[in-house]
Amino acid sequence: MDGADAGRDGGRRIALLLEYDGTGYRGSQYQDNGPSIQGELESAIEKLTGERVRAAFAGRTDAGVHALGQVAALDTRSGMATSAFVGGLNHFLPADIAVLAAVEAAPAFDPRRDARMRTYRYRAQSRAVRSPLWRERAWHIDRPLDVAAMRAAAAALEGTHDFAAFAGPYDGATVRTLRRCDVTQACGQVVVDMEAQSFLPHQVRRTMGALAEVGLGRVDAGAISAVLREAKPASSGPTAPACGLYLVAIEYDGLEWGLAEGNGRDA
Amino acid sequence: MDGADAGRDGGRRIALLLEYDGTGYRGSQYQDNGPSIQGELESAIEKLTGERVRAAFAGRTDAGVHALGQVAALDTRSGMATSAFVGGLNHFLPADIAVLAAVEAAPAFDPRRDARMRTYRYRAQSRAVRSPLWRERAWHIDRPLDVAAMRAAAAALEGTHDFAAFAGPYDGATVRTLRRCDVTQACGQVVVDMEAQSFLPHQVRRTMGALAEVGLGRVDAGAISAVLREAKPASSGPTAPACGLYLVAIEYDGLEWGLAEGNGRDA
Repeated sequence: MDGADAGRDGGRRIALLLEYDGTGYRGSQYQDNGPSIQGELESAIEKLTGERVRAAFAGRTDAGVHALGQVAALDTRSGMATSAFVGGLNHFLPADIAVLAAVEAAPAFDPRRDARMRTYRYRAQSRAVRSPLWRERAWHIDRPLDVAAMRAAAAALEGTHDFAAFAGPYDGATVRTLRRCDVTQACGQVVVDMEAQSFLPHQVRRTMGALAEVGLGRVDAGAISAVLREAKPASSGPTAPACGLYLVAIEYDGLEWGLAEGNGRDA
Repeated sequence: MDGADAGRDGGRRIALLLEYDGTGYRGSQYQDNGPSIQGELESAIEKLTGERVRAAFAGRTDAGVHALGQVAALDTRSGMATSAFVGGLNHFLPADIAVLAAVEAAPAFDPRRDARMRTYRYRAQSRAVRSPLWRERAWHIDRPLDVAAMRAAAAALEGTHDFAAFAGPYDGATVRTLRRCDVTQACGQVVVDMEAQSFLPHQVRRTMGALAEVGLGRVDAGAISAVLREAKPASSGPTAPACGLYLVAIEYDGLEWGLAEGNGRDA
């Protein structure tokens, strides 16, 4: 999708807010080896409008990662009301994907580059026995976690740092600003909420992997700070599994979804 | 299972605490037309101990109903430690069923008749668009609910009454004591918690169906009280779907599961 095209010939750019259960997909973007969220969305758009378009996604989510507030943009010549996009796309989308809202966006709106803030949530379920109701929705850790130690380690990661140690292979600059890394305990789960304008590839899952090592007493919180300072690429240790990760929300200047309270984005 | 048999010839009675996702099952009890929780459990027991036994369940759950704390009992001649029953059965059970705990029970322990209190939870998700992550786990209601009105209607149902209006076809006595019927709102959901020593068939789903009618403004809270007083069998109106219902916990005198906090029974 090229920002300069939309609107030129009577087209519009529509922003979509998406929730999905990522269990059955190879990821958000097109994949050769299986179904993707993008593929399902573009197929639903074609069924609804007759147009074959590319949907641009704000965040690339891996196979098995979920979203409560993924954002996509598409260009269309359809004159359909945005509310009809919501109803129509949900009619054609499978049960594990839904459009929560659709709004008109500026012709140059780029969901990836324009994101002002991204929020991810990681859910770990710490208990002796695996949970049937949370399978594929949380990481099962069969021992107790020291949440206070995890919280101390998480606090040391907040701020602007070179996060190379917490990224998978990446060619670009690795300095990021982690605005928030909160560790909370609720309903038998340890939940980590992370907020930044942008994250490095696998940064949230690598951070959670490192925090779990601290929670399990295998590494102390100070060692995590040392790994951060050393900034040796991909040196943070184990990566937490995809199933516990949720893309919760993405914020943009001047873009409001107009959702009633309780509609969408509840983790 | 006959209570008089256990212990007579070196056998023991074991009580099991079960969590399951009921989506893929025809119900807790044996069914001719598809898989059941009981069938899966008995199959896992046979694989573990070599014994073909009947498992007795505390509560009969319908197709699609979930459990966070179902209780079953089985007789065995195995000398295996109860902790080995937990690990061993979980090894053989499918991912959507788990044994959370196993304890020795008295030879006459009857999980259905000995229950002192049962807790059910009903989850309704009230928002415009269906939720992919809560599909099959909550009832999607696409309009706002008046929670205050639902709460007033629920309060009027508490206490000892003839609940015939809120039961499916039933031959026995229909007087029950509803100890608690709480309506709360959390994370975009309306959650109804009900507690009683025993419930009539479909009582929780029928009660939720009636409360939803109140929440949607189709019926007022006073009309629900009138339906209760009239006690005309199965007259309460629509029955809420199975997918929102969770058997949360069953209490017994003198039976403790010994679970660490956060292990099991978190809805």
